[in-house]
Amino acid sequence: MTYCLAMRLDEGLVFLSDTRTNAGVDNISTYRKLHVFTPAEDRVFVLQPAGSLATTHQVLDRIRVDLAAPNGTESLRSVDHLHEAALYLGRLNREVAAEHAQALAAVGADGTATFILGGQVGDEPPELFLVHGEGNYIHVSEDRPFLQIGESKYGKFLLDFAVTAGVDLDTATKVALGSMMSTSRANLSVGPPYDGAVYRNGSHELHQFRVEADSSVLRELQEIWYLHLLSVIEALPSLAAPEETDAVQPD
Amino acid sequence: MTYCLAMRLDEGLVFLSDTRTNAGVDNISTYRKLHVFTPAEDRVFVLQPAGSLATTHQVLDRIRVDLAAPNGTESLRSVDHLHEAALYLGRLNREVAAEHAQALAAVGADGTATFILGGQVGDEPPELFLVHGEGNYIHVSEDRPFLQIGESKYGKFLLDFAVTAGVDLDTATKVALGSMMSTSRANLSVGPPYDGAVYRNGSHELHQFRVEADSSVLRELQEIWYLHLLSVIEALPSLAAPEETDAVQPD
Repeated sequence: MTYCLAMRLDEGLVFLSDTRTNAGVDNISTYRKLHVFTPAEDRVFVLQPAGSLATTHQVLDRIRVDLAAPNGTESLRSVDHLHEAALYLGRLNREVAAEHAQALAAVGADGTATFILGGQVGDEPPELFLVHGEGNYIHVSEDRPFLQIGESKYGKFLLDFAVTAGVDLDTATKVALGSMMSTSRANLSVGPPYDGAVYRNGSHELHQFRVEADSSVLRELQEIWYLHLLSVIEALPSLAAPEETDAVQPD
Repeated sequence: MTYCLAMRLDEGLVFLSDTRTNAGVDNISTYRKLHVFTPAEDRVFVLQPAGSLATTHQVLDRIRVDLAAPNGTESLRSVDHLHEAALYLGRLNREVAAEHAQALAAVGADGTATFILGGQVGDEPPELFLVHGEGNYIHVSEDRPFLQIGESKYGKFLLDFAVTAGVDLDTATKVALGSMMSTSRANLSVGPPYDGAVYRNGSHELHQFRVEADSSVLRELQEIWYLHLLSVIEALPSLAAPEETDAVQPD
């Protein structure tokens, strides 16, 4: 499994990916799942994959080959809009999966992948896209401007909260880490280190960070999170103290 | 879908069930999914079902028929231990599902159900069981003493937290409501009103409550929860303010 998330906030974009990959529970490894491309000064692209690791790797290699090719080749440098980059990525994704589909089907495997693509091209507003294995894409929701791929359920409540509350980039990054911690605690196939990136609108510059499993930041975040969460829960209004409710009603 | 949860804490047991049922998104209804049986003074049983509503209803009817039958019939009154009640419930559950299996298979449907069974019999410690459609059961985990059935992922983090922190029954009830709210916000097939029950160890008496969709308690709980959660997140240590991290590293 995998857990990657991306949020679009008033100030910019926040990305966070785990690094755990697995081919069965007895074959766990660590791979980066946050990939950055800045092929020209006016553009930044962040890619987060879920699904087949092999397809992802070949797609990334084809992106690099296209960037090194002569002008005239479609690439992340040539596209005029972020949605064109989504279509370009979708085409590579579909072509790579198709190349191996028959051989994989023969062993009952599936080579499809899904990507979150985020960033900014020129003066267009920064945006997030979900690129499907079939090559088409959707924008992030205007009402709930975040995307998740992989194990999305355990950590959803915090993203929901962050975009509703309109938090700043620094707070959003902490929310992203909280969402990741909730997920990795519940699903062993999601795990550290975590790779993050923060993009401030119009900056065309991405700030990246990695949080290691044994980092004091992660431990501190976890301790304070638990401590404060307890105080929140205690501050909630009481609604069912046994002495205040009705006695048993046999069914 | 459904979301039912039960927690075993130092002071006793907490149960909470939603009431939404659906046969497709265009066929939504409301049914109670928290059922209480107190067939004698020394025993309390709480049943929470997930899965086929028809199987659940027939199982409940068979439980009532057995309780009204002459002595000598196995029933919730006759069992000597809570795990015997789990086996008894499991047998009814398996038999009812088997009775309709062929007819349901012909239309591609599945009539299985799963139950959480909790309570206390005599002086035995209060306990929680998960009763499978095949009729067997498992105890609640000693290390993570809570059970969930139905849509369990969205609200898991809070239960995890409550049992780790060893909260009291009142706080646990608020945690249960928080877990339910997180789930119903994320999955339309889980919804209010919510039925709850709190059992204090050794009391052989259950205190029940219902929280309606438009209740001021639920609204207050939700508002305070959001407000405090924001303050918790803001109190977390900062780890990725754009100005403090490395500039972009092309992939």
